[in-house]
Amino acid sequence: MKGDPVINRHSGVPLYGQIAQDLEGRLGDDYEPGDRLPSVAELAERYEVNRLTVHEALGVLVRRGLVTTVKGKGSFVALPIIRWDVRAGQDASLTQAMGERGHAVENRVLGVVEDDDPELREQLGATRALLRFESVRYVDDEPWSMTSTWFDPDRFPRLDELWVDRSSLHLVLKQEYGVRMRRSTRTFAALAADATEGQILRVPVASPILQARGLNVDEQGRPVAAVEHRFRGDRIQFSVELG
Amino acid sequence: MKGDPVINRHSGVPLYGQIAQDLEGRLGDDYEPGDRLPSVAELAERYEVNRLTVHEALGVLVRRGLVTTVKGKGSFVALPIIRWDVRAGQDASLTQAMGERGHAVENRVLGVVEDDDPELREQLGATRALLRFESVRYVDDEPWSMTSTWFDPDRFPRLDELWVDRSSLHLVLKQEYGVRMRRSTRTFAALAADATEGQILRVPVASPILQARGLNVDEQGRPVAAVEHRFRGDRIQFSVELG
Repeated sequence: MKGDPVINRHSGVPLYGQIAQDLEGRLGDDYEPGDRLPSVAELAERYEVNRLTVHEALGVLVRRGLVTTVKGKGSFVALPIIRWDVRAGQDASLTQAMGERGHAVENRVLGVVEDDDPELREQLGATRALLRFESVRYVDDEPWSMTSTWFDPDRFPRLDELWVDRSSLHLVLKQEYGVRMRRSTRTFAALAADATEGQILRVPVASPILQARGLNVDEQGRPVAAVEHRFRGDRIQFSVELG
Repeated sequence: MKGDPVINRHSGVPLYGQIAQDLEGRLGDDYEPGDRLPSVAELAERYEVNRLTVHEALGVLVRRGLVTTVKGKGSFVALPIIRWDVRAGQDASLTQAMGERGHAVENRVLGVVEDDDPELREQLGATRALLRFESVRYVDDEPWSMTSTWFDPDRFPRLDELWVDRSSLHLVLKQEYGVRMRRSTRTFAALAADATEGQILRVPVASPILQARGLNVDEQGRPVAAVEHRFRGDRIQFSVELG
């Protein structure tokens, strides 16, 4: 542990606040993402405070997304979570933006099936069954999200031959159909991972999943695709400026 | 069950799509929210299809939020989920809007504590520890969400005496301080309920929680409060128009 804990009992700043700040300063130095923090009892001894105070300090770090607690296992330094501005990123693909931040992003198409969902068909103005693509996004070789994307096969003929494993959907749409796709609406929901999601995203079944579903449109605002992303809850958050 | 299942094997519409539509038509008639649907085996027999086809049909209903599946227990008619437009509702309190839709909404203040979180203090421009209010929102007597709200005690003196159990925060701010509060930013995340959240929101520990946190401002755009809502994932979704 880097130096001694720095706590000032006469500063007027509550002890748990000082401990939270001291611990935060050690994240990335003494502790790496994924590391287990010392137990509440150990920290109480180290800072010479009672356990409740340590508990409150950890609560501050949990709320700020810096620490996660696992029941019966202790507290862990959280993996870095990306906060994604849905409005700023409206025109860009997340893949592209993450790539620009220095991450290796790879999309894999798992398969294509016909899907006769009547509501989605109406949204896309299709007169027959849609094509649903299933894909997985990997960031730095780790699975981040599963995506279902629905297209009208009459509007995008041969897309199932053109959008193949590891090619970029945005690029295929632009080069082959002259369509620039952008986000139009998104609805956010919290789900529990089912067995398939758990297996593909490499998380325990029932882990929190952030679902973002909605419509993508072209530059004229015409519907292009319906999408449903399921992100690992420990990987990404979405922020919106409402002002 | 209302009438016989209506399936046309020669219509060209995939069987699972027809079954999904037939089942959807029966929700609210044959089955009420919370009811368990017949098992996959029973449905397969009833529709004279194989189980995989029933599974695909249920998948359509799950994706549309009409049905939830609980591992080892079966499929259930989902409770109605509110889809809340975060932009349209920017000026209104959710409490007020839900009330206008005919729901009985009640907020209960559980308590107030000092909180020295340095990041939030900076966001609110406070020079000393903030006051954090903990409250719970009930809709039709059912707990929907837990909320933490942080205020600068110098800007809102005596708020801990004025905003008491069951009074409206929006009303108190308007009447006592002349401040009209509205949403400015929101970040959405998916979490697993901890023991306290499980107990207060009456859901099993580790159930999906949709967290919405951000800043509320006044009409001049000055920060008023930092907020963190934790909603039951089976109760509400947030939608955003990006167009």
